Amino acid sequence: RDGSYNILRRGGKAWRPYQALVEMSWLRFFALITAIYIVVNSVFALIYLTIGLEYLSGAEPANSPVGDFFVAFLFSVQTFTTVGYGAISPTGIAANIIASIDALVGLMGFALATGLFFARFAQPQSSILFSKKAVIRPYKDTPYESFQFQIVNQRNNKLINLSAKVSMSWVSEDEKGRKARRFTLLELERDKVFLFPLNWVLVHIIDKDSPLWQKTPEELEAMQPEFLLLLQGYDETFAQDIHANSSYIFRDLVWGKKFRRMYFQEAGHTVLELDWIDELEEEV
Amino acid sequence: RDGSYNILRRGGKAWRPYQALVEMSWLRFFALITAIYIVVNSVFALIYLTIGLEYLSGAEPANSPVGDFFVAFLFSVQTFTTVGYGAISPTGIAANIIASIDALVGLMGFALATGLFFARFAQPQSSILFSKKAVIRPYKDTPYESFQFQIVNQRNNKLINLSAKVSMSWVSEDEKGRKARRFTLLELERDKVFLFPLNWVLVHIIDKDSPLWQKTPEELEAMQPEFLLLLQGYDETFAQDIHANSSYIFRDLVWGKKFRRMYFQEAGHTVLELDWIDELEEEV
Amino acid sequence: RDGSYNILRRGGKAWRPYQALVEMSWLRFFALITAIYIVVNSVFALIYLTIGLEYLSGAEPANSPVGDFFVAFLFSVQTFTTVGYGAISPTGIAANIIASIDALVGLMGFALATGLFFARFAQPQSSILFSKKAVIRPYKDTPYESFQFQIVNQRNNKLINLSAKVSMSWVSEDEKGRKARRFTLLELERDKVFLFPLNWVLVHIIDKDSPLWQKTPEELEAMQPEFLLLLQGYDETFAQDIHANSSYIFRDLVWGKKFRRMYFQEAGHTVLELDWIDELEEEV
Amino acid sequence: RDGSYNILRRGGKAWRPYQALVEMSWLRFFALITAIYIVVNSVFALIYLTIGLEYLSGAEPANSPVGDFFVAFLFSVQTFTTVGYGAISPTGIAANIIASIDALVGLMGFALATGLFFARFAQPQSSILFSKKAVIRPYKDTPYESFQFQIVNQRNNKLINLSAKVSMSWVSEDEKGRKARRFTLLELERDKVFLFPLNWVLVHIIDKDSPLWQKTPEELEAMQPEFLLLLQGYDETFAQDIHANSSYIFRDLVWGKKFRRMYFQEAGHTVLELDWIDELEEEV
Ligand SMILES: [K+]
Ligand SMILES: [K+]
Repeated sequence: RDGSYNILRRGGKAWRPYQALVEMSWLRFFALITAIYIVVNSVFALIYLTIGLEYLSGAEPANSPVGDFFVAFLFSVQTFTTVGYGAISPTGIAANIIASIDALVGLMGFALATGLFFARFAQPQSSILFSKKAVIRPYKDTPYESFQFQIVNQRNNKLINLSAKVSMSWVSEDEKGRKARRFTLLELERDKVFLFPLNWVLVHIIDKDSPLWQKTPEELEAMQPEFLLLLQGYDETFAQDIHANSSYIFRDLVWGKKFRRMYFQEAGHTVLELDWIDELEEEV
Repeated sequence: RDGSYNILRRGGKAWRPYQALVEMSWLRFFALITAIYIVVNSVFALIYLTIGLEYLSGAEPANSPVGDFFVAFLFSVQTFTTVGYGAISPTGIAANIIASIDALVGLMGFALATGLFFARFAQPQSSILFSKKAVIRPYKDTPYESFQFQIVNQRNNKLINLSAKVSMSWVSEDEKGRKARRFTLLELERDKVFLFPLNWVLVHIIDKDSPLWQKTPEELEAMQPEFLLLLQGYDETFAQDIHANSSYIFRDLVWGKKFRRMYFQEAGHTVLELDWIDELEEEV
Repeated sequence: RDGSYNILRRGGKAWRPYQALVEMSWLRFFALITAIYIVVNSVFALIYLTIGLEYLSGAEPANSPVGDFFVAFLFSVQTFTTVGYGAISPTGIAANIIASIDALVGLMGFALATGLFFARFAQPQSSILFSKKAVIRPYKDTPYESFQFQIVNQRNNKLINLSAKVSMSWVSEDEKGRKARRFTLLELERDKVFLFPLNWVLVHIIDKDSPLWQKTPEELEAMQPEFLLLLQGYDETFAQDIHANSSYIFRDLVWGKKFRRMYFQEAGHTVLELDWIDELEEEV
Repeated sequence: RDGSYNILRRGGKAWRPYQALVEMSWLRFFALITAIYIVVNSVFALIYLTIGLEYLSGAEPANSPVGDFFVAFLFSVQTFTTVGYGAISPTGIAANIIASIDALVGLMGFALATGLFFARFAQPQSSILFSKKAVIRPYKDTPYESFQFQIVNQRNNKLINLSAKVSMSWVSEDEKGRKARRFTLLELERDKVFLFPLNWVLVHIIDKDSPLWQKTPEELEAMQPEFLLLLQGYDETFAQDIHANSSYIFRDLVWGKKFRRMYFQEAGHTVLELDWIDELEEEV
């Protein structure tokens, strides 16, 4: 349902750490930061231990390796975070040089985290809601069937110049009998709206040019269809371009129903019921 | 007057903390930061108290719960901000671990605040001023009426490729007698200017295709009209796209007046009087 | 020469602190930061003095108001920057609360400065150089004169899809005899190039539609012409849109000369001499 | 192979420190930060030494110039990073003022580094892979030859609205017998795709309008051709425009081979083998 084709890529992928750090969930992000915090300070703790706890003035040896490590770890934390209480402070050349590096690494690390926080927060997020189902139903009073789904803006921010593209992919055999996925764009009755104050039902008319033309549900299922929905527009409130994706597969299709009207007039207001986006009604 | 339609959304809204934090007023933003600062340090203070003040070396017990809390709170602040005077410093495993977390949370919090500061400041702001009123007056020497309003750039930064859209919504009855808001774009005599050195009067000619055609003020009032004005262009000085919105409702309309000319030539300069944007004159 | 029209705006300007802080020179920016650093710490110093130096443990009274102020100022600096040596530390409720605020203000201030640094650095900068003069000379072998200037990319970054607009403004009298500036776009023989590896001479042919048509230098001078040049394109190397402006006035115009060819082939390389952009040659 | 023309620019280049700092490798970036860290703290160390080590309370003179310098350097580091252990702290007016400046410079420096980190990370990176070779082979069943290369998206992020431009430059003689590089765009059989789920073979048909028309490999070599490939599109996953460049020269051209088909159907998946992008097959 995240709107991407099911294609397996093999071989030389590029690892993009920035994108991974921006994409991962907040929980994993904080877990990763905590893990790095612990690992880096442990490494510095081991270096301080190698130099000798006697070069950390104020640090009392714990008479056990774990206790000594803990004391060195705490000193590293106090340096890395630049808290520097001073109850423990480095003496001698080696410990002082390592502490200088420790503080620099800490500051660079937090500089990096700051940039990542901002990047994570600043990702534009669309407020567009897609109906969970797409319906296949007659198009107005014509003999044609149509493929329909609807979207709505769940917030009051103004979206303008919204345009939609719907692509469909399905499995077919090529001239040599090899199975392969084919891709096409489905033509929409209307693919652009300037304003989008209420809901918008998108309609693809199933005519002779459509890959859905005269397909029974059984035939369609065999085609393993994937519908990819791409919307883009401009969010006037937040002054940024927005993009929204979703996708439907065969089991998201419903035959012979229609979407319920989502809004009505009440006490001088136009009320839009966002939860009705998935309500379907029988054809009359 | 903020340029958005009056539609009530009900049901599943998405909470977007980033947008909320960027949108709120500076006063609320600083109040929120201060509140979080106090709450977080209070939580850490309670943890330090639970461990015991005797593990904060240098902290003198105050012999009262409030006084003890205050001492622990101060130690947390000194750790959270990474000031770390050292007059109070943690001893023992538990207090040291909490202090390590306190400093990490502090640094993460300030990283976050840094990102938000930047995001708040960097929001593109338009320097376009809209007239408070729109006038309905004859269009040049034609028998047609027109809907007019004007805009001006209040700063010297260069705005180019400015384009305008004016939409109108009003209440009408549909074929089943249900009241609902309708939306349309009003056609403009000119909807794009390349340069915008002075003021710009935008004109919609009220012809047969206009929803304003032959409407008396009384009829118009009953329609509860909302005019939404959207401008976009490019700010050459700050190298960013800008967007400006405003809106008019019925009580912002004025009949039979026109806008005063805002500029004149004086001592080799062209002078543009920004304060005249709302000055109306009788028709001659 | 900064490419903006000479129009005097009077009345209600909007002060935009962010833009001012991003626009000012680096020297003024650092001077401002230093000034704020001194002022804010002085304010906190006065508050600490009001509470009493005896609440700053370790601070030795200097027995002179200036000396006491200096001690309090230093403590504020140590708190504001979160250095916190600890040689001086606050005691008592009031001093501790002020120190907590001092550190918070310091951290917020540096968060703000960080955002501004980034914003200042990240301003897209064009690498396009304009010729200092524009020439008026015959257009190829036609009887028409033309207005020409040239540009060059002074760096190796790839600029693509470059498009140019040239507007001209001049003083003329309107139908009521009032002097006012008029504005028009000058049509260019070519206003777009996809690639821009060498220099580009932009040419406006002075035909009957041009405001320059059959104007003698004297007539032109009386018109007080301003030519505004706007270029936009895409910088492939830095992946950002770029914009470049410049302007010419009457005294930048040269009659009867042409631009020297800026490049030649040398040892398998094409050499582009950037310094030749302002070299003019006699017509042959 | 980085997709830029081989033109030598001489004379007045603009130095753009931000771009340089964003462009350099991570290794050089960290080396530069470390170098600046050492140099700045050394400068402050010399100032503290000039004032006198006796004004750094807690600092024990080392009885050697190098040792004294090291002590002053360590104090500067503790101030610059705002660690401020307090084992050494400044006394007297001069040392305190320098320490105040030291901390301010440190904080500004880290603010700057934070902005640069973010800018470096945030550079949009394309995930498009180009074939290392371009082939010259018959175009379908026509008598024409064609110039072909292929690209593939090496990640699963969705690229849409991808458009391609191919420019070619070559050395030729102008009418006066001077050698100079000429530039042209090569027309593509198809220069735009909406979706790009698999690979894409770009084809330039070598007809009479092509600079490659009826050129033998020997003639082509003498022309010193450079092919510049520019792709742009929109990355739906990361919500940003992406650009990708590459280039071919004579030795990257291959005659009479074709690209191997990169994908096949396997167990219900479409498998795309990224490593096959450079595999060439004999014509059948
Ligand atoms: K400290
Ligand atoms: K500190």
